[in-house]
Amino acid sequence: MSKSIFYHAGCPVCISAEHDVIDLIGHSKVQIIHLGNDKSRIDEAMKAGVKSVPALVTPNGNVLHINFGASMEEVIG
Amino acid sequence: MSKSIFYHAGCPVCISAEHDVIDLIGHSKVQIIHLGNDKSRIDEAMKAGVKSVPALVTPNGNVLHINFGASMEEVIG
Repeated sequence: MSKSIFYHAGCPVCISAEHDVIDLIGHSKVQIIHLGNDKSRIDEAMKAGVKSVPALVTPNGNVLHINFGASMEEVIG
Repeated sequence: MSKSIFYHAGCPVCISAEHDVIDLIGHSKVQIIHLGNDKSRIDEAMKAGVKSVPALVTPNGNVLHINFGASMEEVIG
């Protein structure tokens, strides 16, 4: 089964949304990527269409930007 | 089981997000409210903290604003 990918950057808005997404979708169905700790994944996230975090990329490639924690420019730093 | 509530207003961004949310969470676990067709629910949505649509209110009361379709001011019209 294809998983969703939840990209975040450790901000309070991100952590809150992460808990909600895991509760709603289920831990086994979503991969969590912390872009602040794993900057090598930023390029992949931007190519997927992620413009801000937190964001959820669905198995079919749609990007759901959830609330607003930080822009990708802020994540790149 | 307590359901999530997905508020939308029929805009293209809303419909796309609705499909994604149903795919991710499951149709039986989310109630869909179209605020454009059911304006009597706007007050309830705003009290829940919905500032724009589409938005998902989780069973524990958190509001996840997903992408951006329209502000509540635009929905009220």
